[in-house]
Amino acid sequence: MNYVGRLAALRESMAQADLSALLVSRPENRRYISGFKADDGALTESSGHLLVTPDQALLLTDFRYQEEAAEEAPGFAVKVYTKGLDKLLAELVPELGLKSIGFEEDYLIFRQVKTLAKELDGVELKPTSDLVADLRIIKEPAEIRAIEDSLALIEEVLDGLFNDLRPGMMEEVAAWRIISGLHERGAGIAFEPIVASGPNGAKPHAVPGSRKIREGETIVMDVGARLEGYRSDITRTAWLGPFSDKFKEVYSVVREAQLTAAEGIKPGMSTEEADALARKVIEKAGYGNAFGHSLGHGVGLETHEPPSVSPLKSSELKPGMIHTIEPGIYLPGWGGVRLEVMAEVTETGCRVLGGLNRFYTF
Amino acid sequence: MNYVGRLAALRESMAQADLSALLVSRPENRRYISGFKADDGALTESSGHLLVTPDQALLLTDFRYQEEAAEEAPGFAVKVYTKGLDKLLAELVPELGLKSIGFEEDYLIFRQVKTLAKELDGVELKPTSDLVADLRIIKEPAEIRAIEDSLALIEEVLDGLFNDLRPGMMEEVAAWRIISGLHERGAGIAFEPIVASGPNGAKPHAVPGSRKIREGETIVMDVGARLEGYRSDITRTAWLGPFSDKFKEVYSVVREAQLTAAEGIKPGMSTEEADALARKVIEKAGYGNAFGHSLGHGVGLETHEPPSVSPLKSSELKPGMIHTIEPGIYLPGWGGVRLEVMAEVTETGCRVLGGLNRFYTF
Repeated sequence: MNYVGRLAALRESMAQADLSALLVSRPENRRYISGFKADDGALTESSGHLLVTPDQALLLTDFRYQEEAAEEAPGFAVKVYTKGLDKLLAELVPELGLKSIGFEEDYLIFRQVKTLAKELDGVELKPTSDLVADLRIIKEPAEIRAIEDSLALIEEVLDGLFNDLRPGMMEEVAAWRIISGLHERGAGIAFEPIVASGPNGAKPHAVPGSRKIREGETIVMDVGARLEGYRSDITRTAWLGPFSDKFKEVYSVVREAQLTAAEGIKPGMSTEEADALARKVIEKAGYGNAFGHSLGHGVGLETHEPPSVSPLKSSELKPGMIHTIEPGIYLPGWGGVRLEVMAEVTETGCRVLGGLNRFYTF
Repeated sequence: MNYVGRLAALRESMAQADLSALLVSRPENRRYISGFKADDGALTESSGHLLVTPDQALLLTDFRYQEEAAEEAPGFAVKVYTKGLDKLLAELVPELGLKSIGFEEDYLIFRQVKTLAKELDGVELKPTSDLVADLRIIKEPAEIRAIEDSLALIEEVLDGLFNDLRPGMMEEVAAWRIISGLHERGAGIAFEPIVASGPNGAKPHAVPGSRKIREGETIVMDVGARLEGYRSDITRTAWLGPFSDKFKEVYSVVREAQLTAAEGIKPGMSTEEADALARKVIEKAGYGNAFGHSLGHGVGLETHEPPSVSPLKSSELKPGMIHTIEPGIYLPGWGGVRLEVMAEVTETGCRVLGGLNRFYTF
């Protein structure tokens, strides 16, 4: 991974935004810029912050992480705080002659900003948004390979689960196959697997429970791996026993919506247009109200990251972006069908990643 | 769990704080007050918010969670937002005649507060802190039972790992025994297990890797379960082969520090005094600089929650609080010893929970 290039690119973005210092607090942003891998224990339990200026690259952390920080982020000078970030910054500000510091308004909680403002009297705190996210959104070739490795793993594990699916298997047992299959392969989960059978499939974010899978109902499996920090995220919908006509109809609509989007997505297109490619297919089939979420989202160091492939906050699709294509139809009382693949925006169109061909054709 | 009583208690706290409406956004707080179990997907991916007024109890969520919300939080009226929380609140504010709304400054990110302020022009947004946390800090008897159930599970699993520890076992394999042992028992992890062997033990938050456990070194295992939302958190330090003198010395100091704290903690004591009970033992033995974290933290719906048993932000210990007692000594290059038990502050003192007696006596 090109940490040197990323830091240089961030400094360029900072110059354009007229920022002489930036505090990088989101764990994935910290990792992307410095290599420091630690997650945050919780929202109010940071593992550290980067402080980047035109000529300084500091990693501010506490006692617990000082060894990892020095090992993982050799390009950064580690400074340990014992009384919190605020006090250390209050010492560094005069030392470095800082008049203003940018912070990540999408990560720092309200109270933290309030506390910083109080402690750093006389320093202007500038809310920034997306400075690192805008770099992360275009993946380096090494990152695309890392994402494909993560995807290959989850595809292998999900393929195995497909073979094992039987009536009577509890949802949570199926979910456990995913978790254990990933761990046995040296990876982790990107998120708690969703295995939602029958009516549970109508809840896009159902939590697997003791319900037993049956013949003649939808089984939505939304799963992903985390490997070396990089995520994958795919969904397939299974059915045991003879297909019902309704299932065939609903499934075909969702699959057609997905294929239409995968064929139509091009660089330069807006995310709203991309979303509409699939949405129109579903609307035309009369299920428009049953597709209540957006078509997809970016995937990388986070499972959900920009771009949001959505009409709500439209942006432009560009080569090197990786995002999901996941149309769905959810019918309360009946179940749901969601089909999710990952795709790369290329110079000319859209390349679906992975190869798990667990799709029904009727 | 007493949801009706909790909502009434929250309304009383709101009245005392002169708040006519409160937005409850932190997932554990939402769950505590309403029963709605969903986690947030990420910081910027809320599963919902409670809006509590003296006579209204609303659960604002999106399409994905509407079914769970209605099932799990029968005392709340579910309102679904399609264009985000801000727009729904903008509709509700005039309907409910709200002039001000409290928000959780320890959970909402800076940008969200900015956006709300813009969208809810003319409504005063009041930062609040700890309103629900102050209720959660004293556990109901049913909660103490839930925490003890969670603790019993992790103790059983860690006991099994103790029996299985062998030279040559990789740290990550040991960690996986914890994860799988909990899942086989119908529970989940409270946090990624820490298994840190040899020099890795000097990093209080080491991530288990491919390093193989050896004889003659410390093996720090910090593990916890999540069962029905409630967490447990314990640490034991193991040693394979004949004990070294240094290990015996360091271990004895840590254990004495822990027992001294467990015997001395009483309701009415400050967290600073409680921390000092253990810290003095370690300082007296000459290892003061090697105990770089605080003595403990509360445990409940979150792994780390108030009270912080620490000198940094002292508060009063009261009956019904549950917290860890986890002194440690960390020696870079050598390893570490941390011993962590959970305890309840009682009417007269402190009751150590659980019964896993995996402590060495020499």
